[in-house]
Amino acid sequence: MFLRETRFQRFVQVMQRADQLVATTALEDLFGQMLDLMVSAIEAEAGVLSLYDEDTQTLVVQAAIGLPGAQRLIAARGSASQGLTGAALRQGTALFVANALWDHQDWISSAAVALPLRTAYCLPLVSQGRPLGCVHAFNLPDTLSEDSEELALINLLGSRLANEIEKAQILAQARRRERRQQALLEIVSHLTTTLDRDELLNRIMSRACELLNVEATSIWLRDPEHDDLVLHIAAGSNRERIVAQRVPAGRGIIGHVVATGETVAVNDVSRDPRFYRQIDANSGFVTRSILCVPLKAPRIQLGDARGIAEERIIGGAQALNPRDGAGFAAEDIALFETLASQAATVIRLAQLYSEVSALSTRIIDAITGAIDLKDSYTRGHSQRVSDFSVAIAQELGLSSDKIYRVRIASKLHDVGKIRVPDRILKKRRRLTDSEFAQMRRHPEYGLEFLKENGLLELEVLRDSWTALSQHHERLDGRGYPKGLSGDQISLVGRIVAVADVFDAITSRRPYQPARSADEAIAILRSLAGIEFDGECVEALVRARAKGLIHTQEERAEREHAPKRRRSVRRRSAWMAG
Amino acid sequence: MFLRETRFQRFVQVMQRADQLVATTALEDLFGQMLDLMVSAIEAEAGVLSLYDEDTQTLVVQAAIGLPGAQRLIAARGSASQGLTGAALRQGTALFVANALWDHQDWISSAAVALPLRTAYCLPLVSQGRPLGCVHAFNLPDTLSEDSEELALINLLGSRLANEIEKAQILAQARRRERRQQALLEIVSHLTTTLDRDELLNRIMSRACELLNVEATSIWLRDPEHDDLVLHIAAGSNRERIVAQRVPAGRGIIGHVVATGETVAVNDVSRDPRFYRQIDANSGFVTRSILCVPLKAPRIQLGDARGIAEERIIGGAQALNPRDGAGFAAEDIALFETLASQAATVIRLAQLYSEVSALSTRIIDAITGAIDLKDSYTRGHSQRVSDFSVAIAQELGLSSDKIYRVRIASKLHDVGKIRVPDRILKKRRRLTDSEFAQMRRHPEYGLEFLKENGLLELEVLRDSWTALSQHHERLDGRGYPKGLSGDQISLVGRIVAVADVFDAITSRRPYQPARSADEAIAILRSLAGIEFDGECVEALVRARAKGLIHTQEERAEREHAPKRRRSVRRRSAWMAG
Repeated sequence: MFLRETRFQRFVQVMQRADQLVATTALEDLFGQMLDLMVSAIEAEAGVLSLYDEDTQTLVVQAAIGLPGAQRLIAARGSASQGLTGAALRQGTALFVANALWDHQDWISSAAVALPLRTAYCLPLVSQGRPLGCVHAFNLPDTLSEDSEELALINLLGSRLANEIEKAQILAQARRRERRQQALLEIVSHLTTTLDRDELLNRIMSRACELLNVEATSIWLRDPEHDDLVLHIAAGSNRERIVAQRVPAGRGIIGHVVATGETVAVNDVSRDPRFYRQIDANSGFVTRSILCVPLKAPRIQLGDARGIAEERIIGGAQALNPRDGAGFAAEDIALFETLASQAATVIRLAQLYSEVSALSTRIIDAITGAIDLKDSYTRGHSQRVSDFSVAIAQELGLSSDKIYRVRIASKLHDVGKIRVPDRILKKRRRLTDSEFAQMRRHPEYGLEFLKENGLLELEVLRDSWTALSQHHERLDGRGYPKGLSGDQISLVGRIVAVADVFDAITSRRPYQPARSADEAIAILRSLAGIEFDGECVEALVRARAKGLIHTQEERAEREHAPKRRRSVRRRSAWMAG
Repeated sequence: MFLRETRFQRFVQVMQRADQLVATTALEDLFGQMLDLMVSAIEAEAGVLSLYDEDTQTLVVQAAIGLPGAQRLIAARGSASQGLTGAALRQGTALFVANALWDHQDWISSAAVALPLRTAYCLPLVSQGRPLGCVHAFNLPDTLSEDSEELALINLLGSRLANEIEKAQILAQARRRERRQQALLEIVSHLTTTLDRDELLNRIMSRACELLNVEATSIWLRDPEHDDLVLHIAAGSNRERIVAQRVPAGRGIIGHVVATGETVAVNDVSRDPRFYRQIDANSGFVTRSILCVPLKAPRIQLGDARGIAEERIIGGAQALNPRDGAGFAAEDIALFETLASQAATVIRLAQLYSEVSALSTRIIDAITGAIDLKDSYTRGHSQRVSDFSVAIAQELGLSSDKIYRVRIASKLHDVGKIRVPDRILKKRRRLTDSEFAQMRRHPEYGLEFLKENGLLELEVLRDSWTALSQHHERLDGRGYPKGLSGDQISLVGRIVAVADVFDAITSRRPYQPARSADEAIAILRSLAGIEFDGECVEALVRARAKGLIHTQEERAEREHAPKRRRSVRRRSAWMAG
């Protein structure tokens, strides 16, 4: 009775100790301490605790005691399907081997071979039929038999431990997923802060490289001319080596993906006949495995008359060679797909924006260019005034938002001339008073042009329309059309006034030859505070010193140099009707 | 000894049974079965198992046995801080009360008052110092004392149960978070598929309503004129009642949020002096609690000369009255913030897109309107040809993408006339052969205009430039400038040819009066297959039947009716120079 009493009390003590351990110990320390408790509970000589790794289907040793070189066993990895261990895990029940011949197929028993072994007990840690790990105990007391109560105790401890492992696994997996999703959400949220395509692609690819833990990622965009896929961005280890590559239409795994819109993951490309070897041959990179997803931009509802931009596959994204050596997990694939689809959407948005933005810029260039050509002496005037105004605005430290508005509005400053008859605009002799009066109405005509075409409602012109109406006003109130003075004239009006006169002075005119930039600056400075805003004049002087201001003649010289500038050439053939 | 032996075996059996239950039973069934096991292990008469609810700091009964009306106790809720239960939870240790006077402060003991009570045992379920729940056992055997081994057994079972509850809680929380993050990611990803602002706002708000489980959500945008906040979208229960509301600048909790850029959560608005009561007064909705976050659009990199759109607060988003009655959790706040910041970004993108899109459309309208006015007999011609071409394209079932291109290109079809001298365009008498030859060059001039201004590189014109160069070609090859025939003429060219001639016939001209639409259709039909594409002609006829085609005269009638159409008014004052 005393013996039983003691065993019972020890039993309770061991279980309470296990509770205490579980409640207070971090998982990495828990393994050693639980193993210790289990081995001592049944008075075994040695023990090994290993966890099951689902990906590789092996057992990994976490703790070992009582064995020669126990520490060296930690992190050792072995089969979970062979020998005694395999049998125990398969059956999901503990196996007791008394006086057994060593099973050399069993790697954990083999590891214990330095010990003069007598008995072994293999306790699988299982939850809901799923293997979590294994506890091996070696050289149990001879008194112990398969149905000893001590074995019931170690089984209870094993079950407690399995429960703890499961909890830790659930928690770790949940945290990992949450971290990934959080990272993904941050990337996706951040994508929309740029409509600059290459900036965008760079961002996505370097983040994808980290998040997927792969050697390299790349983005290939469809070339609308030939349907080839052209490398646009590469991130990761082959970044420098892989440039300007091109996969012919329909070739390669990526060609397949772009043609079908399906994701393809190939864990050994050497066995895939679709693999296009030329890129590796060119770059020296060795591709082992590929995850390739389509860049599929969805239908985008644009609103109003613009309608809908249809769904289209604009290219593909690739991730190469996971660094951990394993294949691409379902989780990785889903993540890369989300990233790619989001990237495709934003690339498409950027495309739509840059397209419509280019349309307005070029149409404005065309119309103002045509107006300048109504008077052959003002060829290129609007463009130059716009360039000078932007340079002044930059020197004045205006925001890039505001500078854009100055760019557009200043280019339109003479648009009112569209309403001044050709016979006045093209007249070489001195204008009559009535002709001159009509000429001087062009700032008003310009403002009417904006108003009547609904352009004044647009943000871009809402605070910069004064570029049109005020560019002939003077600080002293002696300008036209309104005779505004001082602070009545807006900053934009003052900027364009300086830019306009600088170009007028430095251009050839019917009544006078072109003067030099220095002469023009001297004139502007002499009139600062009277006609012109001194700060705007000095901003122009500084911009000129930085090489940002080129007169008509300086531009003409560059035009006649071998490298013709396209923007100049574009308009040169145009004459207003 | 026999007794001990039996108890020991029972002990082991009970523990094994607990293991088995944990391994095989779903949580909701586990509570009843574990309670049963625990109560019978110590041979108590009755028991109650309750879980701790962190939000309300109360205990909620999950299972009860042996008590009169046990089932009615399920889901009952009571204090976790008072009486015996409170003491046990605070100390984190079990309390045994033998022959105690009933503590009426203890709600669970009170619930058991119908029982002739003798003893009670209150076992707190605790993990890492955190209360998870409580097991009460009533009327334990008289032989039991505070240090009976049976109590050790129930404590072990309690610890096992606590472990299981913790695991379930971790899992549930992880799943809830994951589901929310997943939902958030889906919403955020989907946002970018529209640049139609109101569509976008509706989407976000209705999803936010679901996700946060609140009675209502709304979006308020800054009115750039007065800085008031104007309600744009409301979702949820007050959707119908709350329209066209306006919060004056700086007023209300939302005014504070928009001014400071800070999130504010107020769980009882009646105590917040900032709360703007007028909206509730107008709508009849009763706001109890508000979560209000700023709509903060980040800096957006636009690329090229367009530069950067600066960060700005464009308004605020509100969520009202969580349905579960609790306040806004940190998790809710973070989620709503993410959603709002993403919405703000996309709203800003939509704004930027619609701004630049409107700029190009209006500039094109202005330039083509001015060209039409060079010849006073073609006023409004370009716009009408564009409208007719779009109607034909729609009838032909072209995609909205393609229709947009037809709209733009057809409006520009006569842009080459900018290069035809006024004296020819405005000439009322018959043109000389050489004048006529120059007039007939306008399709070529138009194509040059596109080329020289870089417009041909744009997607919008890349496949629709033929609207300019081919609108005077004829199917039989007798058109100009190239004399193309049959399939050599693009679909866009054919569409615009039909639209152009329909407008010419139905408009007043120097040499002939306007004819009716029916006459025009008869002429077009008679020339179908010779000069015009028959399908395009029939598409125009169908569009006319649907009321989509209005001649110059029909439009003029509407213009002179009281409701003037703005687009017509806009251009009417313009004359080309």
